[in-house]
Amino acid sequence: MKYAREGSLIDMVVALAAFPRTALPDRARRLAGLSLLDWMACGLAAVDEPLAIKLRRLIGDEAGRGVASVLGGRAAPARAAALVNGATSHALDYDDTHFAHIGHLSVGIYPAALAAGEERGATATQVVDAFLLGAESAIRIGLVLGSAHYNLGFHQTATAGAFGATVAAGRLYGLDEGQMRAALGLCATRASGLKSQFGTMGKPYNAGIAASNGVECAALAALGMSSADDGLMGVQGFVPTHSPKPDASAGLMPPPEEAFLFGDNKYKLHACCHGTHAMIEAIIGSEDLKGSDLGNVAGLEVRANPRWLRVCDLKTPRTGLEVKFSYAWLAGMAIRGDRTGDDGIYTNETASDTALADFAGKVTVTGDDRLSDMQAGLTVTLRDGTRLELAHDLDAVLPEQMLADKLRNKAEALLGTAGQTLWQRFEDLDGVTARDLGAFLGSRES
Amino acid sequence: MKYAREGSLIDMVVALAAFPRTALPDRARRLAGLSLLDWMACGLAAVDEPLAIKLRRLIGDEAGRGVASVLGGRAAPARAAALVNGATSHALDYDDTHFAHIGHLSVGIYPAALAAGEERGATATQVVDAFLLGAESAIRIGLVLGSAHYNLGFHQTATAGAFGATVAAGRLYGLDEGQMRAALGLCATRASGLKSQFGTMGKPYNAGIAASNGVECAALAALGMSSADDGLMGVQGFVPTHSPKPDASAGLMPPPEEAFLFGDNKYKLHACCHGTHAMIEAIIGSEDLKGSDLGNVAGLEVRANPRWLRVCDLKTPRTGLEVKFSYAWLAGMAIRGDRTGDDGIYTNETASDTALADFAGKVTVTGDDRLSDMQAGLTVTLRDGTRLELAHDLDAVLPEQMLADKLRNKAEALLGTAGQTLWQRFEDLDGVTARDLGAFLGSRES
Repeated sequence: MKYAREGSLIDMVVALAAFPRTALPDRARRLAGLSLLDWMACGLAAVDEPLAIKLRRLIGDEAGRGVASVLGGRAAPARAAALVNGATSHALDYDDTHFAHIGHLSVGIYPAALAAGEERGATATQVVDAFLLGAESAIRIGLVLGSAHYNLGFHQTATAGAFGATVAAGRLYGLDEGQMRAALGLCATRASGLKSQFGTMGKPYNAGIAASNGVECAALAALGMSSADDGLMGVQGFVPTHSPKPDASAGLMPPPEEAFLFGDNKYKLHACCHGTHAMIEAIIGSEDLKGSDLGNVAGLEVRANPRWLRVCDLKTPRTGLEVKFSYAWLAGMAIRGDRTGDDGIYTNETASDTALADFAGKVTVTGDDRLSDMQAGLTVTLRDGTRLELAHDLDAVLPEQMLADKLRNKAEALLGTAGQTLWQRFEDLDGVTARDLGAFLGSRES
Repeated sequence: MKYAREGSLIDMVVALAAFPRTALPDRARRLAGLSLLDWMACGLAAVDEPLAIKLRRLIGDEAGRGVASVLGGRAAPARAAALVNGATSHALDYDDTHFAHIGHLSVGIYPAALAAGEERGATATQVVDAFLLGAESAIRIGLVLGSAHYNLGFHQTATAGAFGATVAAGRLYGLDEGQMRAALGLCATRASGLKSQFGTMGKPYNAGIAASNGVECAALAALGMSSADDGLMGVQGFVPTHSPKPDASAGLMPPPEEAFLFGDNKYKLHACCHGTHAMIEAIIGSEDLKGSDLGNVAGLEVRANPRWLRVCDLKTPRTGLEVKFSYAWLAGMAIRGDRTGDDGIYTNETASDTALADFAGKVTVTGDDRLSDMQAGLTVTLRDGTRLELAHDLDAVLPEQMLADKLRNKAEALLGTAGQTLWQRFEDLDGVTARDLGAFLGSRES
């Protein structure tokens, strides 16, 4: 653990890239497998998004050797496939989040890993391992860049994510240690991505940028391109040029031999504002409440961190999009068992659903600054006078099987039977190849 | 001139992109034409550089629709061609420089303009105009980013250059004003490039990055991609995130309707250290000295800014590369008429040339801090006792015909008869198409 002793970020990342499979923590590996399925579901659900269509048009015009599968389109060169798949899978903003990294790992890194894996004929397990090591690298680089980087205006998904994509693609391209250093050096001069794109197609494009940069830099290093020796922390490297207040040691501890920070990765389970998720989880986690008739509930008090009240407490949403920001509507939907994980149910019809409007009249929402922004507390009064006290904390670690079940439900909500097939075929990756995964990704016609 | 009144950089750049041909200053247009020929010569001379071969291999592996010519290789998609041609033409570091912009304009912007122009069937003149407007935009963005950006570690060639490439490609793709704003917004999240690559293949790669980013962002905007409204100076736009001390007004004055800053573009005429160029120009500008026998010179005193003495005053160079950093050797070569513009003459044989070694014994070099780093003073004593006082200032504006003659000589020194053909066919661009230029670029087999 030379890097822990000497505090060298690039040494740690280069070492991570070469971790043998046996050194990967079991739980992190299983989570990385769940991330794969979740990433595929998010991507397949977005193939008709305008952004996805435009990017496919770009690479379709370019054409080229089809070695990697493209969401909703024909196979393409690895770099082009990574660009499209990264952007497409982030188009719904429904993919996973790592809060310490401050970004979305799957959408920047899996497209690079899968494209490189398909190109080189890797197994699916090798793709998952490469993703995991890329993600772990990206988390640690994101920590060193720190909140100062994010607050200045950079988007870790794109910036730190590009290094993760480089590690993942580089591992699958078989780079040796010197080549991996060069690939990271090239990535230092190639990585980019700003938060000022939020609210435009530029946001999902950022994920595609990360993925395609990773493939390009890894491929060039494989061809022998030279670059700075330490593109991360070296003089005028990526970190000192892109963070006004980097935390040089934040990414080094605990060393990855002891713990993978990827274990804290979080999954979006509902296609609505994150501020409402703790409430929804509290409701659907209650055997007394979930699936009951709305008429059985006499009153519902929701308590949340006060910051959310300015974000997602719309009392009478007018559109499907506004429903995603309404505690009152979402509470009724969750109680009666609507599939809040299905992006397709947030329609204007839902906004004008009279049963939900009636129920909303029984809901009060109050701010409680003792709650974190990942927590919610509920007091439910049933018609028979029973009172239920419910609570949920999104930060709590879900039992793995429960997480898997929720993600399977999400995939089915998003994709219908294709979501079932996705899980049946790929929950166990034994004997599966990268090209099998790719064939499934490319199978959904736009 | 709304932008001058309101001080909006992006408004100015969008207006520049739409300048009618008739609004372009004549001298700037002619200089842009010289830049085209110089850029082509630098690129054609570098097709066998290892970096160029590797990048061609990358895009060759990808293949794709061949709509744009590639230096030393087969036609490729516009984005891929721009990547290779940008990097290849910067590989010898022999291309033009704009000191206020702090970077190299041709290598980041011409490859984007030419690739987009070939793809769309433009005339060569349209390519030159698009380059000029992209270059003028890049200069002004570079001025706003300022020396703080450069000193922090960014490479304006790549960063401001990407915006110039976007303007050039976007103009040739026929973007309307809204699309041009979107293209610049996308470029804000795509542009990158660090100086820590200097001394590695990452430096010329930066020029290719700028060019390919410009093509990609312009193409995506043409397809309707949305982005931030002001990706330059807006909240968390490119400038505030990439310069600790931007000079918001530096790029706006004088407004481009009054003067193009591109007129200050400088050309490298000798394939050796920039610190020796003023001495060489003083020698070859002297009718009494140029081409004379080395034996006719009894003594030569060279005065230069003291900073150069640590850089290019090697007394006895051991290799061809070291010859490029030796006043004494280069003085002898310039006097006897060696083609200092030919990268190929800096060989180990030249380093062990006994006539040059003898002559070097007559040369003294002294620092003089009254001289700028672009000036040199020489005192020559001939065998017959005559004393000559010579001086040169690289900052002085060359008469256009003299500059053209020197660039023609440079092209011939670099390329031999192909350099002659280049000038014969393209000095006058009347009736020439972008594809004619491309065919010539692609004609030199590697």
